[in-house]
Amino acid sequence: MTPFRRVAMLGIGLINGSLAKVMRREGLAGEIVAAARREETRARALELHLCDRAEADPAEAVRGADLVVLGVPPAAVGPVAAAMRPGLAPDAIVTDVSSIKAQVVRDVVPHLPTPGLFVPGHPVAGTEHSGPDAAFDTLFVRRRCILTPIEDTDPAAVERVKALWERAGSLVDIMTPEHHDRVLAITSHLPHLIAYTIVGTVADLEEQARTEVFKYAAGGFTDFTRIAASDPTMWRDVLLGNREAVLEMLGRFTEDLVALQRAIRWGDGQTLFDLFTRTRAIRRGVIQAGQAYVRQPQANGENG
Amino acid sequence: MTPFRRVAMLGIGLINGSLAKVMRREGLAGEIVAAARREETRARALELHLCDRAEADPAEAVRGADLVVLGVPPAAVGPVAAAMRPGLAPDAIVTDVSSIKAQVVRDVVPHLPTPGLFVPGHPVAGTEHSGPDAAFDTLFVRRRCILTPIEDTDPAAVERVKALWERAGSLVDIMTPEHHDRVLAITSHLPHLIAYTIVGTVADLEEQARTEVFKYAAGGFTDFTRIAASDPTMWRDVLLGNREAVLEMLGRFTEDLVALQRAIRWGDGQTLFDLFTRTRAIRRGVIQAGQAYVRQPQANGENG
Repeated sequence: MTPFRRVAMLGIGLINGSLAKVMRREGLAGEIVAAARREETRARALELHLCDRAEADPAEAVRGADLVVLGVPPAAVGPVAAAMRPGLAPDAIVTDVSSIKAQVVRDVVPHLPTPGLFVPGHPVAGTEHSGPDAAFDTLFVRRRCILTPIEDTDPAAVERVKALWERAGSLVDIMTPEHHDRVLAITSHLPHLIAYTIVGTVADLEEQARTEVFKYAAGGFTDFTRIAASDPTMWRDVLLGNREAVLEMLGRFTEDLVALQRAIRWGDGQTLFDLFTRTRAIRRGVIQAGQAYVRQPQANGENG
Repeated sequence: MTPFRRVAMLGIGLINGSLAKVMRREGLAGEIVAAARREETRARALELHLCDRAEADPAEAVRGADLVVLGVPPAAVGPVAAAMRPGLAPDAIVTDVSSIKAQVVRDVVPHLPTPGLFVPGHPVAGTEHSGPDAAFDTLFVRRRCILTPIEDTDPAAVERVKALWERAGSLVDIMTPEHHDRVLAITSHLPHLIAYTIVGTVADLEEQARTEVFKYAAGGFTDFTRIAASDPTMWRDVLLGNREAVLEMLGRFTEDLVALQRAIRWGDGQTLFDLFTRTRAIRRGVIQAGQAYVRQPQANGENG
């Protein structure tokens, strides 16, 4: 692919920082300019060579850029898009990396001189760490990246963004923003909400009980704590920004949970056994779809 | 420690199989005799050298043994204890490896000639795999093992079982059966129930949606599928066997979840942000307690 002349990274945390590392490695950007509100973040991004220049003002960062990547928490995407407008060239391609898409499209499009050059995107990758220090250039390898062009989106712009993610190692899919939000509500947003909830339930236990939970967490709780250590700002924005799909999936989950609660109370072992057998098949489906690392038992051992 | 002359393993799946491997490696048993109901399991256990002899009848397996390890699903522990009685020597130490303790004590004690030699135990370790082929001798390394002696239990018997688990690499703790069941309800039983539920919710989606969930599972769902692939029989027995503590913790969880649902519906970002910040602290507590593998980001990348 033809490299971009100048790439503006608005936000330079885990995702944009990792993407910047990919662009460095692959020679995909003549120059990388980052924007970050906090002075400390800008200094750190420069130290880590994630960018050649760092600006506080998004409009300064995007000046002369032919690619802009919006990499701030979902609720900040709209305001940052508004702030960059004075500096944005009408022929620049704009993309984003948010975990929700319909709201981001609604928030960003009104601020763009050329809405057809906006290619909404979501790399389905991440860790529980955040900030520029968490960035690494293999984050996207064999991960899905979903692009959600809208009616007006220029197919050539989609192709360029697609090529960029493929160089990062991602498997790129195309779907509508609404479809994306429904799928992610169940695969990502609801699991995070559930993990946050159960870890919060533990946080409310009295001191002594909490200490014991830490000690015996290997029985299954550990995985939940990792998920529930994800960035609070981002996840607040995701859950509020995709509230309809999340509430719909949460409703289904709650119904199912109440049914199991009833089965436990009345000693209905058959209902439990049937469900627990069906869920094993789902695991196989996930493994076959290549998304689960089939870890060695030695590195695992967290059930029981 | 003095080796046991003959050890009877009643059940020879993941846990008892792994313990047998430890005993072989450490020279802790003159002879290992396994009991398993299914012919196939007995043949496989012999092939894998997990035992020197395999019996269908628990009474035959325990004859002449000075240590008996009950390693069958929780609801089967009582019936197997009854079945072994005709062969059991009055001076044999009996222990178990079940994830629930109060019910096991109730079920086993009436069948023992010398109840004071029963040392109820629970190695807090496991994987989502089951059966003799899943066994490996490092399963218990740096894992907690909880022993729950009762009033009559002989302290010398507790010491011998404790020494055994320490040779397996475990950190051994002592508490009452009731206390064990309350702690594990929150660290293990509730997380498993939740994981089974959400994976079940996905199982009920229409075909196309389910296929997409497999594809995008890396967004958080993958961890749940691993937990929900655990042995169905065992987990049915655990949830029914510890129902009071599980229902109590489930009640707390449901209240918390409903509060978050309300916050999402009404756009109350502050409540979400405050909780998500508190849960990060819990993650730190778990890591400090040494139960979480702090994985490299490269091997992880499942959020977002």
